[in-house]
Amino acid sequence: MKNILMINGPNLNLLGKRDNDIYGDKTLNEIENLCIEKCKKLNYKLETFSSNSEGSIIDKLQISDDKFDYIILNAGAFSHYSIAIRDTIESINIPVIEVHISNIYARESFRNSSVISSVTKGSISGFGYKTYLIAIDAINEVLKI
Amino acid sequence: MKNILMINGPNLNLLGKRDNDIYGDKTLNEIENLCIEKCKKLNYKLETFSSNSEGSIIDKLQISDDKFDYIILNAGAFSHYSIAIRDTIESINIPVIEVHISNIYARESFRNSSVISSVTKGSISGFGYKTYLIAIDAINEVLKI
Amino acid sequence: MKNILMINGPNLNLLGKRDNDIYGDKTLNEIENLCIEKCKKLNYKLETFSSNSEGSIIDKLQISDDKFDYIILNAGAFSHYSIAIRDTIESINIPVIEVHISNIYARESFRNSSVISSVTKGSISGFGYKTYLIAIDAINEVLKI
Amino acid sequence: MKNILMINGPNLNLLGKRDNDIYGDKTLNEIENLCIEKCKKLNYKLETFSSNSEGSIIDKLQISDDKFDYIILNAGAFSHYSIAIRDTIESINIPVIEVHISNIYARESFRNSSVISSVTKGSISGFGYKTYLIAIDAINEVLKI
Amino acid sequence: MKNILMINGPNLNLLGKRDNDIYGDKTLNEIENLCIEKCKKLNYKLETFSSNSEGSIIDKLQISDDKFDYIILNAGAFSHYSIAIRDTIESINIPVIEVHISNIYARESFRNSSVISSVTKGSISGFGYKTYLIAIDAINEVLKI
Amino acid sequence: MKNILMINGPNLNLLGKRDNDIYGDKTLNEIENLCIEKCKKLNYKLETFSSNSEGSIIDKLQISDDKFDYIILNAGAFSHYSIAIRDTIESINIPVIEVHISNIYARESFRNSSVISSVTKGSISGFGYKTYLIAIDAINEVLKI
Amino acid sequence: MKNILMINGPNLNLLGKRDNDIYGDKTLNEIENLCIEKCKKLNYKLETFSSNSEGSIIDKLQISDDKFDYIILNAGAFSHYSIAIRDTIESINIPVIEVHISNIYARESFRNSSVISSVTKGSISGFGYKTYLIAIDAINEVLKI
Amino acid sequence: MKNILMINGPNLNLLGKRDNDIYGDKTLNEIENLCIEKCKKLNYKLETFSSNSEGSIIDKLQISDDKFDYIILNAGAFSHYSIAIRDTIESINIPVIEVHISNIYARESFRNSSVISSVTKGSISGFGYKTYLIAIDAINEVLKI
Amino acid sequence: MKNILMINGPNLNLLGKRDNDIYGDKTLNEIENLCIEKCKKLNYKLETFSSNSEGSIIDKLQISDDKFDYIILNAGAFSHYSIAIRDTIESINIPVIEVHISNIYARESFRNSSVISSVTKGSISGFGYKTYLIAIDAINEVLKI
Amino acid sequence: MKNILMINGPNLNLLGKRDNDIYGDKTLNEIENLCIEKCKKLNYKLETFSSNSEGSIIDKLQISDDKFDYIILNAGAFSHYSIAIRDTIESINIPVIEVHISNIYARESFRNSSVISSVTKGSISGFGYKTYLIAIDAINEVLKI
Amino acid sequence: MKNILMINGPNLNLLGKRDNDIYGDKTLNEIENLCIEKCKKLNYKLETFSSNSEGSIIDKLQISDDKFDYIILNAGAFSHYSIAIRDTIESINIPVIEVHISNIYARESFRNSSVISSVTKGSISGFGYKTYLIAIDAINEVLKI
Amino acid sequence: MKNILMINGPNLNLLGKRDNDIYGDKTLNEIENLCIEKCKKLNYKLETFSSNSEGSIIDKLQISDDKFDYIILNAGAFSHYSIAIRDTIESINIPVIEVHISNIYARESFRNSSVISSVTKGSISGFGYKTYLIAIDAINEVLKI
Repeated sequence: MKNILMINGPNLNLLGKRDNDIYGDKTLNEIENLCIEKCKKLNYKLETFSSNSEGSIIDKLQISDDKFDYIILNAGAFSHYSIAIRDTIESINIPVIEVHISNIYARESFRNSSVISSVTKGSISGFGYKTYLIAIDAINEVLKI
Repeated sequence: MKNILMINGPNLNLLGKRDNDIYGDKTLNEIENLCIEKCKKLNYKLETFSSNSEGSIIDKLQISDDKFDYIILNAGAFSHYSIAIRDTIESINIPVIEVHISNIYARESFRNSSVISSVTKGSISGFGYKTYLIAIDAINEVLKI
Repeated sequence: MKNILMINGPNLNLLGKRDNDIYGDKTLNEIENLCIEKCKKLNYKLETFSSNSEGSIIDKLQISDDKFDYIILNAGAFSHYSIAIRDTIESINIPVIEVHISNIYARESFRNSSVISSVTKGSISGFGYKTYLIAIDAINEVLKI
Repeated sequence: MKNILMINGPNLNLLGKRDNDIYGDKTLNEIENLCIEKCKKLNYKLETFSSNSEGSIIDKLQISDDKFDYIILNAGAFSHYSIAIRDTIESINIPVIEVHISNIYARESFRNSSVISSVTKGSISGFGYKTYLIAIDAINEVLKI
Repeated sequence: MKNILMINGPNLNLLGKRDNDIYGDKTLNEIENLCIEKCKKLNYKLETFSSNSEGSIIDKLQISDDKFDYIILNAGAFSHYSIAIRDTIESINIPVIEVHISNIYARESFRNSSVISSVTKGSISGFGYKTYLIAIDAINEVLKI
Repeated sequence: MKNILMINGPNLNLLGKRDNDIYGDKTLNEIENLCIEKCKKLNYKLETFSSNSEGSIIDKLQISDDKFDYIILNAGAFSHYSIAIRDTIESINIPVIEVHISNIYARESFRNSSVISSVTKGSISGFGYKTYLIAIDAINEVLKI
Repeated sequence: MKNILMINGPNLNLLGKRDNDIYGDKTLNEIENLCIEKCKKLNYKLETFSSNSEGSIIDKLQISDDKFDYIILNAGAFSHYSIAIRDTIESINIPVIEVHISNIYARESFRNSSVISSVTKGSISGFGYKTYLIAIDAINEVLKI
Repeated sequence: MKNILMINGPNLNLLGKRDNDIYGDKTLNEIENLCIEKCKKLNYKLETFSSNSEGSIIDKLQISDDKFDYIILNAGAFSHYSIAIRDTIESINIPVIEVHISNIYARESFRNSSVISSVTKGSISGFGYKTYLIAIDAINEVLKI
Repeated sequence: MKNILMINGPNLNLLGKRDNDIYGDKTLNEIENLCIEKCKKLNYKLETFSSNSEGSIIDKLQISDDKFDYIILNAGAFSHYSIAIRDTIESINIPVIEVHISNIYARESFRNSSVISSVTKGSISGFGYKTYLIAIDAINEVLKI
Repeated sequence: MKNILMINGPNLNLLGKRDNDIYGDKTLNEIENLCIEKCKKLNYKLETFSSNSEGSIIDKLQISDDKFDYIILNAGAFSHYSIAIRDTIESINIPVIEVHISNIYARESFRNSSVISSVTKGSISGFGYKTYLIAIDAINEVLKI
Repeated sequence: MKNILMINGPNLNLLGKRDNDIYGDKTLNEIENLCIEKCKKLNYKLETFSSNSEGSIIDKLQISDDKFDYIILNAGAFSHYSIAIRDTIESINIPVIEVHISNIYARESFRNSSVISSVTKGSISGFGYKTYLIAIDAINEVLKI
Repeated sequence: MKNILMINGPNLNLLGKRDNDIYGDKTLNEIENLCIEKCKKLNYKLETFSSNSEGSIIDKLQISDDKFDYIILNAGAFSHYSIAIRDTIESINIPVIEVHISNIYARESFRNSSVISSVTKGSISGFGYKTYLIAIDAINEVLKI
């Protein structure tokens, strides 16, 4: 059975609480449960982690190395400036899939670049909370022979 | 039954022929067949289109309006400068999913921006030829209630 | 009798079909007819041409040389990057008037520059579909002694 | 009867006096008279104003609000940096048409941007002194039902 | 016997017709004939192709792969923005020699960069129509042991 | 008999000694001899000069004026910043052909611009040590009537 | 008793007249009266001055030197480009407090920089017409021992 | 009774300890006490919080939502790059007032921009430790009817 | 007898009053008198003009045309942004000498460029109040045969 | 006896674990021990600290003030954006020596600048794990009279 | 008696030989003689030096320290990039006056900045060969009490 | 016995003569002697070389290849623009250690980049004249097994 880790960065714990047009009305907890459920069907085990702290996310990524087969990472605002998280992704062996709930290219210009994109396996963005579910589909697809 | 259109832009017809590390060894034809097969299982109908010409892609997008439920678009190099294709996407009613076979952010700097990203529904990149299959998964996921 | 050629670039054939606030609700065909009508009153002959293809617009501009007295050109998105069209305008002898339906300076920043402006006779923008009619007025005014 | 105000900014009072290739040989006074004459034929009343002072142009725009139906503005060099004039145009209710005698895009690069373009109704440039007459045509065209 | 393909991009079919100082007074046809003649002497076979369309040039480059030993390419204005043509050159196996009739660095700043230079075998520019003949000399020199 | 001067700038005296992939394995001396030989066949006389000093290259260019018919210049790293050498080329009467052994556009970004290109007669790059021989071909071609 | 001068720059005389969301519905005159009233309570004397002219504002600042204890300045659009006003503030002895009615950083990018900020005592922005009243509070606070 | 939260970011706990010209000689504790005292007089309750950690500040902002009426935030160096804190401010309902002890525009250029300014209610800077007291005045002023 | 006009722009009337290291301790009046005296010795007539208003300086330059042989202009802060003054200088026939009391290149970066330099006859800067006297020397030198 | 503190930032705890060419095969623990040993010989006491958290590094730097004679800091990725750490270094009294294991200028362009360099005593980079030992040599050298 | 050194940089030895519009028709030797003559009248002694080599100019500046009262320097193209010469000027005690024969701001954009301006006493440009004579006037003026 | 070469670039021969705060009061000769002495103790032989000429430094680097084990290079101002020296370092086999007496990042912005850093073995800066001694320590450290 494959193990997946899903990490959510700063302010994503507010999902569904700040019910604006951009982020949808599902809470992070509801999304995590939908993902766990979907993984169960596919016979994967999903662990979730969420933090507003860059250091904690780096710590989590480091100690997770060799313990998971895939990481789904929504680094939130850290995507735009945390070279430290980028370095961690580059250093560990687990492939990381970058996800963004909204289309970051349709928003403010400072959201148009991601310092972590170039070291991830792939990235998926713009499908609302379903982006997380699609990331699981992507893992499923890639794991097929 | 839902109808999907898959459009491939310049040089993607060479896929599998230029068997380098970046693009994999499947030909475009093989990929299209894998997608058609996958769609069939999901009860979707997939039409494919491929061209090296910006004008032809615009024409195809325009005449496809209202005839498809989703468009999967790999605009290739046009992604980086064709504001004309961007305008077409913005004008038509069908949601467009942008796909890239490789992680465009891990390559030359002139491939780090896509002028069409901001008008697409979402984007998926970096999973090799499987990116197309994941795009179908994404449509499937989004179409679920 | 003077001969005028009116060329419309990519996506302008969608005018009136994408009935948003920016472009108005007249179709390109209706606009062309209004222009033909106005020209007739002024004793000019107007030929119209529309294409989504950069190459076709260049071909049309080249074969039109010495066959028309004025060209009214709305190059649409090509205005922002087609140095090739720019070179054609520079090479032919017919004066070209650049038109834009909307005020391109009030929109996205990538629409703030036109690579063709510097080789045109003059430019008119922002008056909706009437911009084309004003271009005919402009030709009429310039042709007066 | 419609009222039009025509405002000319810095150094345009030198028109015709500096008889170079760029600006033509008609004096500002001669141009104003041609415009008044043309307006008379169209049953419009034209008032003219000219100043080298940014503050005076702002004052004139402000006190003119609700007293005119259209303003034709050649802000000259102020077009390139006067955010103050831009703010005035944005604040008043009368639509403003921006005109430039020469094709500003064919000249020095610092003349390639206009800070006021984005708040005007439309803009016309490059037709020499006839640009003013075409602006009147434009008003005439727009006022038609 | 070696086979060479010579491709000319947008507006180069106007050579000799726009007889200005920059491009010289030989027509493209005359230049092609001079090249064919020179090739004959060197025992090469030269095929020529010319188009104003980016898509057609890409198509031609693709279908020519493995059919020629060398390609001489004057991509004209496309040199400055066609990443699509760049990708084609990178994908095919035939070495491409970039030529420009005029010294592009002595002209407008937007002509100072070529997106295709970095994927060509070499480049030659500034010698007028003779640049094409020198490109043949270059092939001849490179083919010597 | 025509006289040609060939000038090589900084570090080109190391050619063939640093036997890497970029520069080939011929020494500068060997290349110079190949060029002298080729010139002899064409009935030209070739003088060679090589220096690591910007000032010496300028001195050589100045005293060579009116003594040679053509100069072949590989200014090496000076190509990227020596406005002084540029000024000398602009001041003297002999046409200068710029050569680069490697394709400078396929290397580090600071090698993508040449401050001297715009004042040279033409430039040739990317053909290894044969670039020098092709430059002689170019002179031969240009000198033909 | 302390003396305060309040200067308002271009278009601020239109406050309350252009009753949009950004600027509120109080006229400049009403705001000035609220400030005078508040000053009276704090035993300060407030003089007000308003102009659309850069030169007049400079003149006023210069002749006010040594006549006031504090200046509250809303330079409006001049904040973004008037180095001349900046120089005046730097030259006079009275501390100047910069105020902006709206949060200039939440608006157009050309409003994101103020050339005068670096020479003012402090700045306050974003509190609507109350920004002026807070500036008086600030003076009151600073004047306390 | 209104509740105010005052948050101080990295290195502000060193205030008064690094007794240089820029920051004054009051310690953060002394400043907090002065603020508490002032609030008491105005019948507000002030809670203070200080941290060197971006994550802790985000956590504090999130858990404070709906528990306070106003937040006074000096994000220190985080003002210049923490898009994560920016996102938190944008997500919560409490209005945030940005304060800076020194005039950030009169210092190093990398302190000239604040990524959080555009999502705050208003900002006050340059009045030394009294900037905090003026922020309380600002709240007081804004809360008046 | 030759006539010279000396124009001083914004804040230069404060010279000598703001007695800092950069500008020296002579008042503008004292400097003007020294210049008048020096001119008298050289048999020139010097008229002086000073204003804080861009519009007034433009007016003065325009009405002075053909009435003076040389203009000495210290445009102060206007040097850095007044394209309007630049245009006036370009339009009038009198040669203008640009002067700056201090070395503008040794100060803030926004003082490193002058929009008027390129249209002046020459420029002199850095010699304190003596810069004006040297400008008179320059005129004297230039007028010699 | 002198006291030295050695601080290692994000991902440096992975040293030797990610055994790539850039960072060498010694673990952080091994390096720390080599440093302690070397310090012992020189009669210094070395304390080590390592964290992935910006806030923790700032906390450590602050509480270390006046407790150490020198700090050796490898801030890792934080070197490129943590203005907060920069401010801490500037605020404390202990001189800080910046070290980098690899030559940061030979890597990605976003690693070419360090926001903390300008406030450190000195910096040493590129000598692999020996960089730390050389930093101790540097302290030893500086402490000599 | 005061001693003056006049240094001319690269290509200025060609003055008068390249008799174009920009530089005039006087040779450097003739200009030097005019300067010596003028100095003699003012009772100054002038030594002249000219070189195409950056190193030689630095050597000359260094050995001249304390041997001259003023240096007149036309660094030619070195003005635009020789930080080494800049450092020498900054290090020596003699005041240096920068001169340029032509108005460098009216030419190519790469001539619009001088890296040495900020360390010179003052600069004079645009008066042709007379610029050197005016520099002597400037020294004369500055040396007056 | 190991051989070390120490090269000092432009103006470093002035060390100790320009006794300012940045560079210390030791002359280059004194520093060289301290280094020779230190090397002797470590059983290394040190040769020193100093020049103001870019060409001479390149010559020295080239002829030193294979004759030394390490080069310590302070290229002074050439560090910021001499791509030629960079190319030499890249071409020779001896590892080069870059040193700077002062912290170049704490000075003018044009000193913030070094074009040679990326091709050196490592770099050390900011420790005054002791930087040279630390470079010897570094060599000693690196040479240890």
